Amino acid sequence: MNTNPKLAYLTAVLVSTTFFAATIVQAAEPLPSWNDGKTRQSILDFVAKVTKESSPEFVPPAERIATFDNDGTLWAEQPLYFQLFFALEQVKVLAPEHPEWKTKEPFASVLKGDLKSALAGGAPALLAIVGETQAGLTTDEYATVVKEWLATAKNPKTDKLFTEMAYQPMVELLDYLRANGFKTFIVSGGGNEFMRTFADKTYGIPPEQVIGSSGKLQFELRDGKPALVKQPELFFYDDKEAKPIAIQTFIGRRPIAAFGNSDGDLQMLQWTCSGPGARFCLYVHHTDAKREFAYDRKSSIGQLDKGLDEAQAQGWTVVNMKDDWKTIYLTDQK
Amino acid sequence: MNTNPKLAYLTAVLVSTTFFAATIVQAAEPLPSWNDGKTRQSILDFVAKVTKESSPEFVPPAERIATFDNDGTLWAEQPLYFQLFFALEQVKVLAPEHPEWKTKEPFASVLKGDLKSALAGGAPALLAIVGETQAGLTTDEYATVVKEWLATAKNPKTDKLFTEMAYQPMVELLDYLRANGFKTFIVSGGGNEFMRTFADKTYGIPPEQVIGSSGKLQFELRDGKPALVKQPELFFYDDKEAKPIAIQTFIGRRPIAAFGNSDGDLQMLQWTCSGPGARFCLYVHHTDAKREFAYDRKSSIGQLDKGLDEAQAQGWTVVNMKDDWKTIYLTDQK
Repeated sequence: MNTNPKLAYLTAVLVSTTFFAATIVQAAEPLPSWNDGKTRQSILDFVAKVTKESSPEFVPPAERIATFDNDGTLWAEQPLYFQLFFALEQVKVLAPEHPEWKTKEPFASVLKGDLKSALAGGAPALLAIVGETQAGLTTDEYATVVKEWLATAKNPKTDKLFTEMAYQPMVELLDYLRANGFKTFIVSGGGNEFMRTFADKTYGIPPEQVIGSSGKLQFELRDGKPALVKQPELFFYDDKEAKPIAIQTFIGRRPIAAFGNSDGDLQMLQWTCSGPGARFCLYVHHTDAKREFAYDRKSSIGQLDKGLDEAQAQGWTVVNMKDDWKTIYLTDQK
Repeated sequence: MNTNPKLAYLTAVLVSTTFFAATIVQAAEPLPSWNDGKTRQSILDFVAKVTKESSPEFVPPAERIATFDNDGTLWAEQPLYFQLFFALEQVKVLAPEHPEWKTKEPFASVLKGDLKSALAGGAPALLAIVGETQAGLTTDEYATVVKEWLATAKNPKTDKLFTEMAYQPMVELLDYLRANGFKTFIVSGGGNEFMRTFADKTYGIPPEQVIGSSGKLQFELRDGKPALVKQPELFFYDDKEAKPIAIQTFIGRRPIAAFGNSDGDLQMLQWTCSGPGARFCLYVHHTDAKREFAYDRKSSIGQLDKGLDEAQAQGWTVVNMKDDWKTIYLTDQK
């Protein structure tokens, strides 16, 4: 719409400078933590195909939407989902305010230190723990508590901060896609408010591009000022079929690339890779018991069974962590 | 994170060029369809305050979030919400496939041409019409039907295409904010999938920045290919208290500027303008019976009553359409 010739000229300068900058990024060898081989090459080939203007499969930048699962895809998820470590800690912190938890499951078992019994209730038990420990906090208060926890809490298996367990190769992949005009989103079963506290700093993904499960919120006046207060009930559980639904509801465009690690991501990958034109679907396969964790078809966390079969049938890229990644965790601390 | 010196240099060039380009845009006299006066000036003052790096109220670009209502704020909403014209038309189109509508309200009244009785049921009747006429369509099919309708249907009062009834001054305002580093979002009671068919072209707002009411979706395989199919039930009704809730759930940041025209936008404006630092809230007041429509405290569509009192109490900007806008509808057809 803008017909100002000076602006048009400057826009042209900007665009060409941007292309030049993108070229430099590529020239500096993209994906340095990925070993050479067909996995890394499949990413480079796809990006070349959709970004080269002369390519028959060129995709305009606005449509270069890439969606990423978080737990097990961008950071680790063992021995338990990291958000669950936070919620379990909160059960202990908040127990004095909740005398009823002493006799109410799954809280009673958590307080006794019997995690196995606490989680025997499956997803409903897990959602109760997450939901009730955040209820009553404003969204600002919740973010503060999460940030404080993330600053010091450590994973019992690695003794690392949880954000240090983001995967270096995946962070490079996010950077590489963005340098090539992609808009990167998280679409995860994890809580949206939980992930937003670190996604920008750790992954370069701003809050408005983080889609997750979310609890109900209530609009209230507190001391005469509006506040959004977290409720114990779930609003939206972002897993399996709900992932493509969330993509459509929140983003409104079908991604051209999707990245996951479990059967919970299968429908997102199916939705992404069944669209017209060039598409890219990738599963991270946890095969490195030494440097990370090895699990797939039988795991209760991050089960990858149907997804592995579908990836083979469809020719999707499968990352073999052991062979494809030079390093696992963040080397370049932010 | 990136420590490549060539890239750092190029980034610096890019940033300074961007500032230069932004300066040119401003020099070309922003908001040309706004009359000089305190309304226009309040916008210019706010933008200067948050964008000048030396200002004590400077806001980094990433936090420059601005949210806009759609009906009555970015385009007109009389004599009925435009999406309702579409849904009423669809009742007639789809009637042969729905023999039960002949005796089922509000459909029976619509088919008899008795709009008053059809809408006497209030919001539930309206939602039934919208929900049932889109049920069963895939999201792609729905977008196609809406686009076809928008290409030819005309508003009975103005004989204009509905997208021609976007407000020229507001489109300029959107452009001006974006030229100053803002990210502009729609947060509307209208349907997200409906608005996404034209928001990019008409307002420059891409699908992923359009938040609206949304119907439930179902993930299905159709002819072996994944499809998202619209269901008759509502998933989320984005009005009043639900607007700040939607902002938090979808965007995850509190806006620093919000724009509305009715009591349905009041909580969004309250949430926006009660945050710390510089804030801007604006109501469009429909005062121009000659060039547009004049309505406020008693209107069944776009009622502005409590909001008008609150705007006065809080010192928010109120656009007097008759005096503040040189032109009303789009002059610069896209």
